Parts: sequence; structure tokens; C-alpha cells
Amino acid sequence: MEEQEIELALVTSPTNIYYLTGYNAFSFYVPQFLVVPLDRELFLVNRSIDRPSARETTWLEEEMIKPYGEEYIDHYVNYPDPKHPVDFLLDLLRSEGLDDRRFGLELDDYYCRAFYYRSLVEELGVEVKDATQLVPRVYLKKSEREIDYMKEASRIVEKGMKSAIEAIEDGVTENEVAAEILHTMVKNGGSMPSFPPMLQTTAACHITWTDSVIREGTSVSVEIAGCKERYHSPMCRTVIVADEDSSLVREARDVIGKQIEAHKKALETVKPGIMAEEVAIEANKIFDERSSRVGYPAGIGFPPDWGERTASFQLGDKTVLEPNMTFHTISTLTEPFMMEFSE
Amino acid sequence: MEEQEIELALVTSPTNIYYLTGYNAFSFYVPQFLVVPLDRELFLVNRSIDRPSARETTWLEEEMIKPYGEEYIDHYVNYPDPKHPVDFLLDLLRSEGLDDRRFGLELDDYYCRAFYYRSLVEELGVEVKDATQLVPRVYLKKSEREIDYMKEASRIVEKGMKSAIEAIEDGVTENEVAAEILHTMVKNGGSMPSFPPMLQTTAACHITWTDSVIREGTSVSVEIAGCKERYHSPMCRTVIVADEDSSLVREARDVIGKQIEAHKKALETVKPGIMAEEVAIEANKIFDERSSRVGYPAGIGFPPDWGERTASFQLGDKTVLEPNMTFHTISTLTEPFMMEFSE
Repeated sequence: MEEQEIELALVTSPTNIYYLTGYNAFSFYVPQFLVVPLDRELFLVNRSIDRPSARETTWLEEEMIKPYGEEYIDHYVNYPDPKHPVDFLLDLLRSEGLDDRRFGLELDDYYCRAFYYRSLVEELGVEVKDATQLVPRVYLKKSEREIDYMKEASRIVEKGMKSAIEAIEDGVTENEVAAEILHTMVKNGGSMPSFPPMLQTTAACHITWTDSVIREGTSVSVEIAGCKERYHSPMCRTVIVADEDSSLVREARDVIGKQIEAHKKALETVKPGIMAEEVAIEANKIFDERSSRVGYPAGIGFPPDWGERTASFQLGDKTVLEPNMTFHTISTLTEPFMMEFSE
Repeated sequence: MEEQEIELALVTSPTNIYYLTGYNAFSFYVPQFLVVPLDRELFLVNRSIDRPSARETTWLEEEMIKPYGEEYIDHYVNYPDPKHPVDFLLDLLRSEGLDDRRFGLELDDYYCRAFYYRSLVEELGVEVKDATQLVPRVYLKKSEREIDYMKEASRIVEKGMKSAIEAIEDGVTENEVAAEILHTMVKNGGSMPSFPPMLQTTAACHITWTDSVIREGTSVSVEIAGCKERYHSPMCRTVIVADEDSSLVREARDVIGKQIEAHKKALETVKPGIMAEEVAIEANKIFDERSSRVGYPAGIGFPPDWGERTASFQLGDKTVLEPNMTFHTISTLTEPFMMEFSE
């Protein structure tokens, strides 16, 4: 914070609040703020009915939880005297003498609504700096305990993928396959991943299951992640419903040969001390169709993402790799692979 | 838009983009914009690898999809020449001659990042008005087809809740219960709900399952929703692991008697022509412990919410109820009930 000249960070990302306090409730559909002054103890502003969740899941002392009442919730239209949780926050900042600091906001995060920024600037008249990367740069490098969660998530996703491969066959619906994946991962200790299982039977990405029936000749790209304590280990595999020696499978093998080679190259290239972009440069020498990016930072996350917002294996990323950084290497629409870099 | 003096609405909520175009991909973890000029055809700005998803799931013509390239993705730190999708958007607005309009942004929605607002104001110097309620006010009242989705979602959640009640018993883990719920709802035609199943065994709200073992004497509050084509029908029930004639169950019956009565009152009160707050006023005459709110608008949604952002059964809400508005009535931590108002 000092380096970035931020005197008070207003953390709104549920992922970052979780990382700093342990707060683990799906209550982030309403406004929540972790107020982190540089010179004073931090405190959490959440909704009063979620106070018990803060007590149970965080290390915060009672006086560090300062919830707003139910009378601030969902006043949209047709209210004679509308209240907003931001009103509560601003009053609190004023009464705590914190309303004249240089603020840091996660301006480029989903959960930092434009309304928060506008209210701070217009009502407090404070200077606001971008703090989107303030917390993520800390968890870019994982602790041993975090790596253990990642490994557990990897074990869970392996089971989930196995159940997907077993379930996919001529005549089943995509719903049935998704049901098996979720059942297997959750029963085996998984938390809810930030994305639903993605079952893609066309070139369309980021699509979940439909009630379509899978038929002979269908290629199903399965993209899932195991999740343990909000740490994710993603995996992609493509399942083709066809005989091992069919022309379809033979063609697919030809197509993916180069990709697999490029992936192996990426995995071989990864090592501490090099820059993130070097992994992409090496892999792209062998195969480069869709994008220069061959890996993204996977790990801690709440919906809508299991990717972190830190460093990628793509051109231009000069981040120097260190042990215990975690990435998911992935390539093209048809056959992505997974690795965990956790040396 | 005319009424609110908005010349160009920049829609960023995935729920609202879905409502207007049909776009149904879990790609909203990266920036996406539906540009809706008052005097011209709308167009979608999304990521290039998600162009096929826009083709497949929306009614948009090819020229109405204007994606940004992969070179705009995830340039966080350590990039010599960082690019952001907002740069692409601003360039596009300029080249289309749309950079001098009066803008409407969903300032108070999760997916309208502060960074978008700041960029528009600082780089284009445009006036920005709040358009958070622009689209939701339209789907507050559902079409017959939307009501059909809600009814299908209700059938799905009933099956899910039945499986939860059957699964909860002494000795099972919360993971096992959650796995059964998800399996049942998804296998029976459900899409992925915006919240994971919530299994609450203490006063803490919005908590999902853990690997704890459920024991005799545990009270499990189950909060789930069936989901069909992104339309949700939520339901809450509390399951107590104890004999029917145990003192625990007898006490629980005493406690919830008033609540059930209040709920029945709420359901009786709901009718077209009254104001939303009247439902709360009537129900709270009988039981009013936690909050004046006895119902929220349930329906269309992507993570992190299945509640709409429209009207609630709570004090102050003067919205006049009409047929085909959908709400989830819910009360207190211990025993909430569900209804669908779809007359």
C-alpha cells in the first residue's frame, strides 16, 4: 500500500476478502467492504444477517465486524426514502475519521461497482487509486497450505473427469453427464467450483450443458475444476463418441498431434527464474493457432472465476516465475491440457 | 431510455444481456458490453473466442457481434504495452461516432466495474446516468414463456428438496447431501443455479456445505433453487435430524408456528393492484423478528444472484403488483417458505 501511495484500501472482491480474513459465505451478491487503513486495524462492513457467517468463518474479532442493517437492502425503485449500503459505509468512514484518506479501490474487479467509485469521489471528494492488483500479487505465490488445497482440488478434478469420460456415450443427455460430474466431485470432498461444468459440443466456448442427447460422432469438450476451500484445479479433456479406429478419431489424432507437442514444450519450459511469456514463446514455436496465451493463473476464486488476476503465459508478460505459482496451461478449442506448476 | 434521457445504454449485466439477446455463456468473467444506442441497432462487444457462443445462443446478426481480440486479455502487471478491452470499446465508440452520447451505465450492478465508468468519464468526457434499473423493470413482469420456465424450475427444485430431505440423516456428510441435491436437479433437466446449494447448520447464512458429518440433533436449513434457462425458483426448508416426538422437534414446532402463520398471511395478501410493501405490513403484524422484508424478486439470473433487482415485499416498496411478477417469500433464519406468484 505504501509503495502505491494508498492510505486506505477498500477491498470488495470476495476472493480478496476471503484471502485476507477467511470470510467464506456466498453473500457477495450484496455490497460488502473490507476497510483496510494503512495505520489502523482493518474492519469488515457486511450485511447484518451475514454477521454470524463473519464470526464463524473469519479470524476477525467482534468489534472488527460492522454490519449494516436490513433497512439498507434492495431499495431500487418506488421507495420514498431509499437507502443504500454505501450510505452506511460513507457515514462510518466519516465517523471513524477515515474520510480524508487516499483510497485504493479494485477498480477493474467485478465486485467493485461503478456506483462505489462515484459515491466516494463525489460525496467524499477523495483521491482514488487503482488497487486491483494489491491483494492478488500476494497470492500469486502460494503457501504450502495453499498448495495442499490445490493438490486436493487436483485429486477431486481427476475423479470428476474420470466420471465424465465414463458417462459420455451415445444416447445420454448432457444433463446426465453434468449430474455425474457434479455428484462425483462434491461427494469426494469438493466445494462448488466457480464455473459450472462446461460441456462444449461445438466451437462455442464457456457453454454449460443443455438437454441435448449426445450421439455417435459427437465431440464433447469437458472443462471442469476441482475446488477445495475455494482453491481450484481446472482440467480440460475432449471426449469423442466413436470407435477407436474410426476415421473421426484418426483425424482428431492428426489434428492434436502438434498441440500435444506444444503443450509438452510449455510444461518443459516452465521453471523458476524465467519470464512468464517465455513459456508461450517456446510453445508457440510449435503450435500457435488461436492465441499466444498458453496458460492462465488458476487458484483461489469465487464466482464468476477460478482464474486469478495475476500473471499469464502469454506474450508480453514479464512476470518472473517463482516456485509455488500455479497455472493452468490450456490450448485451442479442441484439445486443451492441464498441468499444475507447484514446484 | 428516452424517459431517463439516456442516448446510449452500455449494458454489462450478463443477466440483462441475456434478457435482451439470449446470450448464454459463462464468459462474463471477462469484460462484455452490449451497446444499445437509442437511434441505431444494438451490438455486442465480447471476447473473440466467445464469438461462436454469441452466434449460437443469440438472435444477433453477424455484423452485430464486434469482438475484441485475444491480445486484450488479462494484461495485469509487468506488461510493457498493456491493453484492456475498454480501450477497444472506446476506439469502437469513437469510430462509430457514438462517443458523444449521453451514456447510461448499470452503475449499481456487480458487472459494471468502476474502471468502465472512470474510463468513459475521463477519456470520453461524457455524461453518465444510472441505468441499473433500465432492463430489470422490463422483466419484473414475466411473459407466459418466462412463467413456463419458472414453473419448470419449480418442478426441478421440488425434486431437489425431496432428495435433500431423504439424504439428510445421522452419519452422512454435508458433501454427500449436496452431491445428491445437485445430481437430482441437474439430471432432471436443471441448469446450474446461480448459488450453490446452501446447507446451514448454525445461524450463519449463505454458507455452503462443508465436510462435517450431520449428527442426531442437527438442524439443517436447506436453501436451493431449480434453474431452467437461467430462470430460478428458490425453496427453503429446515430438516431436523431427530425423532418426530423428541423435545427438539416439539420446541421447533412451537417456534415456527407464528412464522408459518405470518407466511400464510403473506401469501393470502399477495394480489394484483396492491403495493409490494403491503404484503410485508400484513405478515409482520403476525411475526416480525429479523427484517421487515418477507419476499424478494426471484427469477432470471447469472451468478452471483438468482434474485432480480426489482421490487421486494418490504416496508417502503410502493411498486404496484401485477400478474406475472415472481417473488420468493422467505422469513427468518430457521424456517423459510417458498411461493411462486404467477397468476
